[in-house]
Amino acid sequence: MSDLSRLSINQETIRQWSLPELAEGCVKAGVPGVGLWRAPVQEYGVERAARLMRDAGLAVTSLCRGGFLTGDDRAPALADNRRAVDEAAALGTATLVLVSGGLPPGSRDLHGARERVAEALAELAPYAADRGVRLAIEPLHPMFASDRCVVSSLGQALDLAERFPAERVGVVVDTYHLWWDDRLAEDIARAGGRVAAFQLADWVTPLPAGVLLGRGQLGDGVVDFRRFRELVDAAGYAGPVEVEIFNEELWSRDGADVLAEVADRYAGHVLPA
Amino acid sequence: MSDLSRLSINQETIRQWSLPELAEGCVKAGVPGVGLWRAPVQEYGVERAARLMRDAGLAVTSLCRGGFLTGDDRAPALADNRRAVDEAAALGTATLVLVSGGLPPGSRDLHGARERVAEALAELAPYAADRGVRLAIEPLHPMFASDRCVVSSLGQALDLAERFPAERVGVVVDTYHLWWDDRLAEDIARAGGRVAAFQLADWVTPLPAGVLLGRGQLGDGVVDFRRFRELVDAAGYAGPVEVEIFNEELWSRDGADVLAEVADRYAGHVLPA
Repeated sequence: MSDLSRLSINQETIRQWSLPELAEGCVKAGVPGVGLWRAPVQEYGVERAARLMRDAGLAVTSLCRGGFLTGDDRAPALADNRRAVDEAAALGTATLVLVSGGLPPGSRDLHGARERVAEALAELAPYAADRGVRLAIEPLHPMFASDRCVVSSLGQALDLAERFPAERVGVVVDTYHLWWDDRLAEDIARAGGRVAAFQLADWVTPLPAGVLLGRGQLGDGVVDFRRFRELVDAAGYAGPVEVEIFNEELWSRDGADVLAEVADRYAGHVLPA
Repeated sequence: MSDLSRLSINQETIRQWSLPELAEGCVKAGVPGVGLWRAPVQEYGVERAARLMRDAGLAVTSLCRGGFLTGDDRAPALADNRRAVDEAAALGTATLVLVSGGLPPGSRDLHGARERVAEALAELAPYAADRGVRLAIEPLHPMFASDRCVVSSLGQALDLAERFPAERVGVVVDTYHLWWDDRLAEDIARAGGRVAAFQLADWVTPLPAGVLLGRGQLGDGVVDFRRFRELVDAAGYAGPVEVEIFNEELWSRDGADVLAEVADRYAGHVLPA
């Protein structure tokens, strides 16, 4: 049997499953962790979802996502992020993933937008720390820089995170977003104890229109997952390895088949050879 | 009248025009330079294209493109690149744009692919220098890293170029590919005399399927062109400013209208305010 003790499945990878189906499917497959998203959790009920996963013996490895902190209307964004912190705390996860947001409409000021993220982190980090939640800045691939996330590399995420104590603000290492960066090894080493989450998806081409749903099943693309995992481990990270793939082909299949395939690919491409 | 003395139009921006139409259109619009592509030039005849542009008084500011040097079958790629050098020399341009190529099929070794580019440059640069042509390494946006170009940032391009004399191997600064990079200002300064070409297109979303034809008309997106031009100028570059936009909407319109719009946008977004 493969060692699945660190494997976590992000619910969006198998979005055809309800939360109860996810819990049952993970228990059956021997997958010990799940990454959750706010909208389906809110729909199901936060406390109810927390109880469901707890009763199933599953760890909630992260909550996706807060963020979108670059706009002009700051107060509602901060309020929503405080709610996200509360939800993470209720779910029993210490990791709230933050996607920073893109450029405000009409703006060409990337640097300014990044500074607004820093200002928002300064407001949110103490609130989150009081509730046992760490903010995890997720750099997204540079193709999302204008409309989703002005933080485009692990180095940039660390430039932001390092303004705060490591136990309050960490970073997400997501293979899909970072695989192309030749500074990756040094930046992962630099991240050290700030690695708050490690997420996996493969890079496959051609990209679909809108590029959001182009992520590949592990092993179908060009990402060297084993090297990534070794780098993250060497930085001192011993936490969950979460598979987060947005892919319509996976969503069209039987959920248990997808999960079995993920576990198989994880064993073949991520675990030690 | 706006100062169009540095403006060059890459022929792919108005691909609905034949080479004679391009020459005539540029003369009428007061645009003094053109960037050419190998395939249409070969079809028209290299010597004939050279004479056409010379007779029209137009400068050929660059030839696109050589490269694709990462594959296993090295000899044909090198031979083709020598032909590209010969064509550039015949056209009277000192700048051959090189797009490195993506990962070879089945490979996950980005570093190795980049090293193969370096090896190929070592073979090609003396040949090009003997013919008065400088190789210009073009970093493409990281979303092209797997299938087109393993050189994804200006810093990476400089890491390669700096292994050779500046007059033999330079870099292309293309706004579309580089705008997201927070190291841009320092890397353009580092490039200095190695800036061999400066190309413009705007970043607009959503990206179309395949992402190749998603470039925007100047001013339609998020790129701060004036700042880019100031950075490139400050690095000592005084050469042509070439507009290269792949966009099906532009291709569907009257070529003269597109060129007039490009000149207008250039004046409004690139020239000093």
